[in-house]
Amino acid sequence: MFVYADNAATTCVSRAALDAMLPYLLEDYGNPSSLYAFGQKAQEGLQKARETVARCLNAEPREIYFTSGGSEADNQAIVSAARVGARHGKKHLISTKFEHHAVLHTLDKLRKEGFEVTLLDVHEDGVVRLEDVEAALREDTCLVTVMFANNEIGTVQPIAEIGALCRERGVPFHTDAVQAAGHMPIDVKAMNIDMLSLSGHKFHAPKGVGVLYAKRSLPLFPLIEGGAQERGKRAGTENVAGIVALAAALEESCAHMEENTAKIIPMRDRLFAELSKIPHSKINGSLEHHVPGTVNMCFEGIEGESLLLLLDREGICASSGSACTSGSLDPSHVLLSIGLPHEVAHGSLRLSIGEYNSMDQIEHILEVVPRVVAYLREISPVWDALEKGEQPHLI
Amino acid sequence: MFVYADNAATTCVSRAALDAMLPYLLEDYGNPSSLYAFGQKAQEGLQKARETVARCLNAEPREIYFTSGGSEADNQAIVSAARVGARHGKKHLISTKFEHHAVLHTLDKLRKEGFEVTLLDVHEDGVVRLEDVEAALREDTCLVTVMFANNEIGTVQPIAEIGALCRERGVPFHTDAVQAAGHMPIDVKAMNIDMLSLSGHKFHAPKGVGVLYAKRSLPLFPLIEGGAQERGKRAGTENVAGIVALAAALEESCAHMEENTAKIIPMRDRLFAELSKIPHSKINGSLEHHVPGTVNMCFEGIEGESLLLLLDREGICASSGSACTSGSLDPSHVLLSIGLPHEVAHGSLRLSIGEYNSMDQIEHILEVVPRVVAYLREISPVWDALEKGEQPHLI
Repeated sequence: MFVYADNAATTCVSRAALDAMLPYLLEDYGNPSSLYAFGQKAQEGLQKARETVARCLNAEPREIYFTSGGSEADNQAIVSAARVGARHGKKHLISTKFEHHAVLHTLDKLRKEGFEVTLLDVHEDGVVRLEDVEAALREDTCLVTVMFANNEIGTVQPIAEIGALCRERGVPFHTDAVQAAGHMPIDVKAMNIDMLSLSGHKFHAPKGVGVLYAKRSLPLFPLIEGGAQERGKRAGTENVAGIVALAAALEESCAHMEENTAKIIPMRDRLFAELSKIPHSKINGSLEHHVPGTVNMCFEGIEGESLLLLLDREGICASSGSACTSGSLDPSHVLLSIGLPHEVAHGSLRLSIGEYNSMDQIEHILEVVPRVVAYLREISPVWDALEKGEQPHLI
Repeated sequence: MFVYADNAATTCVSRAALDAMLPYLLEDYGNPSSLYAFGQKAQEGLQKARETVARCLNAEPREIYFTSGGSEADNQAIVSAARVGARHGKKHLISTKFEHHAVLHTLDKLRKEGFEVTLLDVHEDGVVRLEDVEAALREDTCLVTVMFANNEIGTVQPIAEIGALCRERGVPFHTDAVQAAGHMPIDVKAMNIDMLSLSGHKFHAPKGVGVLYAKRSLPLFPLIEGGAQERGKRAGTENVAGIVALAAALEESCAHMEENTAKIIPMRDRLFAELSKIPHSKINGSLEHHVPGTVNMCFEGIEGESLLLLLDREGICASSGSACTSGSLDPSHVLLSIGLPHEVAHGSLRLSIGEYNSMDQIEHILEVVPRVVAYLREISPVWDALEKGEQPHLI
């Protein structure tokens, strides 16, 4: 049985997304900036996509900028806010310790340019505290950026509360909603979100297309200079086929969100319930504030990579953390941020399921994972020492 | 009859490109950074694409970085060279007056950051002089960036000669080859090119994917920070389907370059020959150094936009210049750079043809354009004054 359980890494392209994009690959291939009717068809496709995305987020169409993905959107939002801040002598940014690297590395770059960055703790439950945000806010804070849902452990942050606080204090608020868009309700107005990033391939659009929402009143600087596309804020001929696919996929995901969630949560809960029976296992992050599909657990005494390779042999696609950091030997910065010791963080497993998964597949996972964990512990010298009581168990 | 004669703006997606991308949209949708075999299939697709692109440019696979398009590649190449230069106290860049805005606006940004930029003249023939490059080179020059072929008038620059000069002087050399890739032979080693940008949708790949070639020995900084994709130089989940399509399209274009050129040149030459018979018309840029498919002419006494709209009514897709600047009321900076007066530059027409065009379509263009130009002159008060000798003709 083949089980794709890595939907937080990427998702299959939906029929709706494919149907939306094909006409723009096959027939209506005109350049949307062209004057003639044939190019204007592509322009209309873009415009409709912009309206659809705006509707899904409760934004205005002119507040939607199409990018090449979530990382580009994160980079542009943060760098842009920093540039605006610097003009007013505000060079302090607030974020959290467990953001995606698209955020953390951009903040690192700004730090080297003389900006000051406060990274908030996310505690053992993987949730940032509103009072910590409040305490960190300063007169010279030019941006607060807190992810909507964490990409590894799936914990959801108090976005509306942070938004309200930032609005009250007049500080722009950005959220990386890559793991939330299409899976949880987002209302940028009600949540007081000034900027938001999302990525199409996390909700069944193809890879290579994303969105930066930026509130109309906010100055935005281009990351990519050149032509006047995207109202001068993002140069380069628009990825029309990708953009219309993103809009179609987001619309479908939002329209079916309740029923998808109702299908996914019992599968996820069964995974949590059964996998928790494995001795010395641990669920990472609070289940109280959680995206529907993500399961992240640690199994003491095993190496996450070996686990993944053995699961792969049994047809299960899973990850130990973010795909973007696969191949790295360091344990996940996310798991360290919620207080896991290095040894435990190494034995992590992320299963991220979606509406295309079935309960049969969950049963397959539940048959395989405990068996593989037991096998790996059997051959592990660390586990041997733990079992003999020569080392204390950590979880 | 529908005639798409704006191939310099964008091209149709070829069968080869579509066939290459569909499996990565439909089946092999894994994240290439994943450990499991299903993700590694996407990784293999990427790697093959990298090898194909490298082969087409005579580069090494590890010198190929996939981007979201030509503009992003231009931005990254130039900003990166400037950062490296600044570290060594070299803050002078050389380019030309008629580059694409992705280059010119990036240079403007650097100028505001304290860099000095020399923009070389391109003379009436639209070709930069080697001796002008040589005269502009300074001890503190950190980059020379000259486009391979101009996007509006199609003139080809002495790239190999500039490359040799820059290599001799130890100055990095970048070329925006967006209009040349797939249409003219490119050999980065023989031409001493250190960095090169190209865009897939100019040679029958879909929009939203491009390439930055950067010589191995050259330090490269990411424009988009985040995950470790593209060897840490370009973050964001790779647009796998777009990338494999780009590679397939480039491979096909390069394999059929001679036969395509042999088909296109007689069509282009017939356009030049016949349209030149229109009184007070002018061919823009030298025909001696020219991409195969681009025809750019001015017709005195008419507005380019009106001409385009009337051509559109007769099924002909053409442009007055770059699609990226459509809608702008200013005359093309390219036409001004080759010395055209404002009034004449306003009456420009760019027809860019490719291997998908036919001689029948050329005949249709030749039937329509002279008739429409005559009509527009008939209703033009300017033309009236010119005809009566109240104003001197400019061409």
